[in-house]
Amino acid sequence: MLHPPEDAAERRPAITLIEYDRTTLEERVIENTEELLPHLDNQRVTWINIDGLGDVEVLRALGSRFNLHPLALEDVLDTSQRPKVEQYDNYLFLVLQMLYRDRAGVICGEQVSMFLGKHFLITLQEEAEFDVFEPVRVRIRNVSGTIRKSGPDYLAYALLDSIVDHYYPVLEDVGAKVDLIEESLSTLQPRINPVGELHGHKRTLTRIRRFVWPVRDLVSSLMHDETGLVNKATKVYLRDCYDHTVQLMDLIESYRDVLSGLMELYLSAVGMRTNEIMRVLTVISSIFIPLTFIAGVYGMNFAHEADGKPLPWNMPELLHPYGYIACLLFMLGVAVFQIVYFKKRRWL
Amino acid sequence: MLHPPEDAAERRPAITLIEYDRTTLEERVIENTEELLPHLDNQRVTWINIDGLGDVEVLRALGSRFNLHPLALEDVLDTSQRPKVEQYDNYLFLVLQMLYRDRAGVICGEQVSMFLGKHFLITLQEEAEFDVFEPVRVRIRNVSGTIRKSGPDYLAYALLDSIVDHYYPVLEDVGAKVDLIEESLSTLQPRINPVGELHGHKRTLTRIRRFVWPVRDLVSSLMHDETGLVNKATKVYLRDCYDHTVQLMDLIESYRDVLSGLMELYLSAVGMRTNEIMRVLTVISSIFIPLTFIAGVYGMNFAHEADGKPLPWNMPELLHPYGYIACLLFMLGVAVFQIVYFKKRRWL
Amino acid sequence: MLHPPEDAAERRPAITLIEYDRTTLEERVIENTEELLPHLDNQRVTWINIDGLGDVEVLRALGSRFNLHPLALEDVLDTSQRPKVEQYDNYLFLVLQMLYRDRAGVICGEQVSMFLGKHFLITLQEEAEFDVFEPVRVRIRNVSGTIRKSGPDYLAYALLDSIVDHYYPVLEDVGAKVDLIEESLSTLQPRINPVGELHGHKRTLTRIRRFVWPVRDLVSSLMHDETGLVNKATKVYLRDCYDHTVQLMDLIESYRDVLSGLMELYLSAVGMRTNEIMRVLTVISSIFIPLTFIAGVYGMNFAHEADGKPLPWNMPELLHPYGYIACLLFMLGVAVFQIVYFKKRRWL
Amino acid sequence: MLHPPEDAAERRPAITLIEYDRTTLEERVIENTEELLPHLDNQRVTWINIDGLGDVEVLRALGSRFNLHPLALEDVLDTSQRPKVEQYDNYLFLVLQMLYRDRAGVICGEQVSMFLGKHFLITLQEEAEFDVFEPVRVRIRNVSGTIRKSGPDYLAYALLDSIVDHYYPVLEDVGAKVDLIEESLSTLQPRINPVGELHGHKRTLTRIRRFVWPVRDLVSSLMHDETGLVNKATKVYLRDCYDHTVQLMDLIESYRDVLSGLMELYLSAVGMRTNEIMRVLTVISSIFIPLTFIAGVYGMNFAHEADGKPLPWNMPELLHPYGYIACLLFMLGVAVFQIVYFKKRRWL
Amino acid sequence: MLHPPEDAAERRPAITLIEYDRTTLEERVIENTEELLPHLDNQRVTWINIDGLGDVEVLRALGSRFNLHPLALEDVLDTSQRPKVEQYDNYLFLVLQMLYRDRAGVICGEQVSMFLGKHFLITLQEEAEFDVFEPVRVRIRNVSGTIRKSGPDYLAYALLDSIVDHYYPVLEDVGAKVDLIEESLSTLQPRINPVGELHGHKRTLTRIRRFVWPVRDLVSSLMHDETGLVNKATKVYLRDCYDHTVQLMDLIESYRDVLSGLMELYLSAVGMRTNEIMRVLTVISSIFIPLTFIAGVYGMNFAHEADGKPLPWNMPELLHPYGYIACLLFMLGVAVFQIVYFKKRRWL
Repeated sequence: MLHPPEDAAERRPAITLIEYDRTTLEERVIENTEELLPHLDNQRVTWINIDGLGDVEVLRALGSRFNLHPLALEDVLDTSQRPKVEQYDNYLFLVLQMLYRDRAGVICGEQVSMFLGKHFLITLQEEAEFDVFEPVRVRIRNVSGTIRKSGPDYLAYALLDSIVDHYYPVLEDVGAKVDLIEESLSTLQPRINPVGELHGHKRTLTRIRRFVWPVRDLVSSLMHDETGLVNKATKVYLRDCYDHTVQLMDLIESYRDVLSGLMELYLSAVGMRTNEIMRVLTVISSIFIPLTFIAGVYGMNFAHEADGKPLPWNMPELLHPYGYIACLLFMLGVAVFQIVYFKKRRWL
Repeated sequence: MLHPPEDAAERRPAITLIEYDRTTLEERVIENTEELLPHLDNQRVTWINIDGLGDVEVLRALGSRFNLHPLALEDVLDTSQRPKVEQYDNYLFLVLQMLYRDRAGVICGEQVSMFLGKHFLITLQEEAEFDVFEPVRVRIRNVSGTIRKSGPDYLAYALLDSIVDHYYPVLEDVGAKVDLIEESLSTLQPRINPVGELHGHKRTLTRIRRFVWPVRDLVSSLMHDETGLVNKATKVYLRDCYDHTVQLMDLIESYRDVLSGLMELYLSAVGMRTNEIMRVLTVISSIFIPLTFIAGVYGMNFAHEADGKPLPWNMPELLHPYGYIACLLFMLGVAVFQIVYFKKRRWL
Repeated sequence: MLHPPEDAAERRPAITLIEYDRTTLEERVIENTEELLPHLDNQRVTWINIDGLGDVEVLRALGSRFNLHPLALEDVLDTSQRPKVEQYDNYLFLVLQMLYRDRAGVICGEQVSMFLGKHFLITLQEEAEFDVFEPVRVRIRNVSGTIRKSGPDYLAYALLDSIVDHYYPVLEDVGAKVDLIEESLSTLQPRINPVGELHGHKRTLTRIRRFVWPVRDLVSSLMHDETGLVNKATKVYLRDCYDHTVQLMDLIESYRDVLSGLMELYLSAVGMRTNEIMRVLTVISSIFIPLTFIAGVYGMNFAHEADGKPLPWNMPELLHPYGYIACLLFMLGVAVFQIVYFKKRRWL
Repeated sequence: MLHPPEDAAERRPAITLIEYDRTTLEERVIENTEELLPHLDNQRVTWINIDGLGDVEVLRALGSRFNLHPLALEDVLDTSQRPKVEQYDNYLFLVLQMLYRDRAGVICGEQVSMFLGKHFLITLQEEAEFDVFEPVRVRIRNVSGTIRKSGPDYLAYALLDSIVDHYYPVLEDVGAKVDLIEESLSTLQPRINPVGELHGHKRTLTRIRRFVWPVRDLVSSLMHDETGLVNKATKVYLRDCYDHTVQLMDLIESYRDVLSGLMELYLSAVGMRTNEIMRVLTVISSIFIPLTFIAGVYGMNFAHEADGKPLPWNMPELLHPYGYIACLLFMLGVAVFQIVYFKKRRWL
Repeated sequence: MLHPPEDAAERRPAITLIEYDRTTLEERVIENTEELLPHLDNQRVTWINIDGLGDVEVLRALGSRFNLHPLALEDVLDTSQRPKVEQYDNYLFLVLQMLYRDRAGVICGEQVSMFLGKHFLITLQEEAEFDVFEPVRVRIRNVSGTIRKSGPDYLAYALLDSIVDHYYPVLEDVGAKVDLIEESLSTLQPRINPVGELHGHKRTLTRIRRFVWPVRDLVSSLMHDETGLVNKATKVYLRDCYDHTVQLMDLIESYRDVLSGLMELYLSAVGMRTNEIMRVLTVISSIFIPLTFIAGVYGMNFAHEADGKPLPWNMPELLHPYGYIACLLFMLGVAVFQIVYFKKRRWL
């Protein structure tokens, strides 16, 4: 039972057909799946690209024309697939996630499915607005390119490579932002709280990793393909693509490391600062609290005489000619003692 | 020695029998295990489902009729089994955990055991009230479905797939709650303490993971089964089921990551806030403590005269015409100096 | 060179002999190792159990009678062995740790060594007071049990299974205590410090894990034994035992997870509470410190007149008819302002 | 499509040719790639070293002369390659990163690519200013060295070994700095904040690890090479090189461990110190706050008489002959009680 | 090019020769490497032990006599080798680290290299003062020992075993110290800061682990040796040695676990204590701050009359007959209210 993905546009999918061999090239927009019929069994490379998964009928027609397994078609429509390659009788089925920044700079993911047969390649994308295949189309139009001399397996490689290559700018974008944060943290007293932002970048990296990690296995599977659908010459190129995915993983891991390090760095910087403020508070409080107490004592109102009788034991200091001076000096002494003590213990 | 699980209801288990081939279908409730006898050796697919493990006699009868190993029967009754598949002489024995939310929304686990033979499938569940097999029963009743054209191995796959599919809503439920917490944390000053809740979700995820992780191995074992009990056609479907378990593991891991991240985020937010409050306290205290001390000093009662003799050294400031004004200005100066100093050090 | 373990009792070990086949059973206490001689080469299963490792002579005698390797005998006496199985020419040598709670509820470990031959099983334990083999002895006495129909390999399995089964109550005991702690932490303001206790449970789990982890490999080795000492029928039972060890590992890991989680939960709860207390201190301090300062100012003793001359600039407020009222209102205003400000910033 | 790396100098690359066998040696600077032609198919070992990647034409010429795969040439120009070895039809392609400190002591990385053929070795570096190959050139000039008796595989090993050996001083430099930090932390009250520096060293280690880790696999691949391009005698030497990379990994890991430990140590030391300061603040505050309150009470101005009527209930203590002494003694008592109490609870 | 290690004594190395078979034994100190010649090709076991690596000539002589590979000799002199076993044409080359406490109790490491041939064993140590081989020498002198009946492989095993056995007391020493710390932490208010010490023990464990971990692989390699240099009988003994290394790893890991746990425990204890002190401060401050404010208010000097005119609104409380009593009661009320409130919130 095929259901279109929930958020799929209800418009008809746009179908484009590119057919080529060493000398000829034909590009067409297909209106009706019936038109595909005559393009099947010739010796040219047939690339059918479908943008939009809103119309299940198109898929069903495609499925019956190309004898595609229902499970594979279900996977095409379930846009939360993990990248994978599956081997069916006459074709390989690939799913992976394309990643690009849209016009507003937001990172978008879009699922791409591929059916790689002996003479055809069918690609299916979620929507038509943007894809990362344009450079490949340009290379196809170039009559002397490698792509024109090769089969659909090389075309699949080229698309794969283009998808993988488009992970780089997205990653580098994250990297640049992380570098910015790092720079802002290198000042001694950062005022912004970068924790939320760091957390966000970590999630983005986790997301990209979930896309990239299985792509590595996917490419590796293609490299060791034994169905004959992937030529030995193409496998050399796939090795290059494999290296890229490994490199991407390396990049992601090192960014994650940096993020964790920055988090630690920031928290420790914040802790250090709190510490310093604390210390100042302690010192100021500790110095003034005893002094204020002394002032308080001499602010007490014990009477020097009651009912005309002198009370000589009550606060005689207050009546002493140099009482005030002595008191101030005593306060100074207490303060100096404390400051020296704190300095000595290196608390100040 | 077979013992029913401790919390098993003592009611008789409910036994239902579904027998089908491409053309015929028979559904019956079985009262007595004797009735099962004539259904054994025909060519149709026989699915015996037993709800409730309270009556050991039924199991024993089943065991002797279908020649089930005592160890397998013991495992059926021990409802804390780890998901696994075991190969016996004439059948495969599968145990796994079904997961669903009951009417109150509480996540419930229930152990399901399966005996998959050449012509029969026996499933045993802990209780009758709820199971996740209803969609499969519906598909059996549909005469043109794949299930009617296939053997008990496909039926087992369908049940397995249904169990695995029911992990998704449970997980998504956790995910939705986690997203809610994340949203509430994105405000700058969260007032609720989400730690307990995050801890609870982590435990739920750990629990689900303990169910899902071995299911992956279970499905993988079935995919590479060499007993002939699982047909090649079914294995293609099992591959799909395997992908789902991998995807589930991915989901669980990414939720766990998010949970850890949120915990960190929350603790850092709390720490930041405490920090800010601390800073304000420090500033206010540090500003007022010296001022209060000065006020205290001029609140001292040193006498200006004693026994008629003036004591000119005692607090002459108090007798100065502009003493008060000067004192207030001095206080202001101290406060301004402090504020400027704190601003400069960026503590304010 | 054989040395008894340091803490071994110096009493003679207690030797018991159980010999059985399908129809006959003989149980005897052996006084002298010479008595063992006639029991060797018959066709019955001979189980020699030795409690206590204090007398090296007994081991040496046993060693020469059964041709046991000196290294294995050394391992028997070194009671800190890691569980393992070793293959010698005519027998398998197994070491593992038995775990039980003694009468005082303390968790005790005791090393058990087994020599499994074609017709005999020798088990050696550290001391006689307690072991976990009693259920197996009961099963041997039951003439119709599986054990009587099987060889020494099944007997070894039964003992192994009994040892493994006795890990469960010990673990469940830890689990119950952990649950208690968790419950006590779920109240909002826990007063006890559970860190020490959690730490203790973690050490217990680590200890049990060190016992259980290698047992899994041990059972796995027996399952894939190729010496012929372990029958195929017994291997099915060993698979069950293997599942138990995996389940135990799962349990241990999940308890460890819970312990870590509780530690985190507790520390975060303590942090939260400190935080709250801090906040209250801040608020109270911040509200009263300025007020106290104001009171201090008006407590200053600047004179309103000196030498008969009025000093109109010195604290005229004090002479104002409504000065006190105005002062109190001003204080109230400052307090209200602060409370509103703190409320607004959600610090209160 | 070959593009020079972005930061490559636009100068022509410097090409040097060294050709040798057991008896002859020829060193030349090549101006034009045409000059290389006659050096190709002889039986001597031809080492072509190219410094600088700014001129793509040179590479292209080289590529067509030596039949180098375009993908390999692309990798040469992409200077962020992960170390790897790739097998092509007639040669092995190696990429790795050279690491050295430049004159200013800054750690520099430079990518080195090698093409190892049956009779030639081509090495390509990013820039000419500095490389780590000088010791190898010296060894080549020594007519009796092993290098002169061996093929290009041994030369490749010698260069590889030189690169790996140059990782050591860089690492030891980091190690020395870490030791310095550790020493400065061993004093009880560190005043510097080493977190940033520790973070920096961690990043350096991560970077070196990213270079070293894949080199291990690279060497391992060469050791198990089956193309015949690496002789058995050379493989013995490669084993030595392999050991070095393992040792490097060990060193890096142990430095990382030390760094983490120091971070922990420092943070705990800072925490301890804050703790001690806190305790002093608490004690001083707690001692003086009640005393100040008492002084405040006796500083209150309740009137002893109003309108000529005595008010005997208002602060009679102030009129008592020994009121002041009693008050001071009471304050002393409060202070002593507190100090004793704090001492007893070990807070002081 | 052979260079002696930097810190090697410049004295001549001490060379001892032990030669034995079942019946004969010869021990000699060798002055000149020439003397070794006649001992080479006989059928007895020749053990040449060299203490001290200061004289490169001896090594070179040895190298040419026994045909030792230059790389192996270089490894002998590089005393920071990772433990390993390498297979050369006619011998095995082993490097590992000996660990012992010297007379002052300091843990020392010393590198031991071994060349194990068909009839000889050469061991090389860094210095002569102390080694762990004495027990082996004693066993050689015992004419009826296993060692005399076996080849150099058994001798190598005996030395290896002795080295591994000497790791135990070092580890147990660390363990004992850790236990002491744990005990001191179990008191509720630890005053010492054990973080530095724990850190030191962790570094020691890391160091020992770096020695032990590769020894396991080394022994494993010997166990699976296929050169014929290690007899099957010796492999049984090596299995025992392998078990010891695994046990050592277990010990180290569990000590590391305990150390981490203690660190956590200590930090949490310190945190708890700070917390408690904080709480007391809060309570005392919060109770007295409002009281002090009240006292401050009534310490203000608002005049009751100015210029002979009464100011009835200025602080009439002060003139009230029971004003003081009422004020004290009010203060008491505020204090009691606060205490009750804090008790209720469980802050006290």
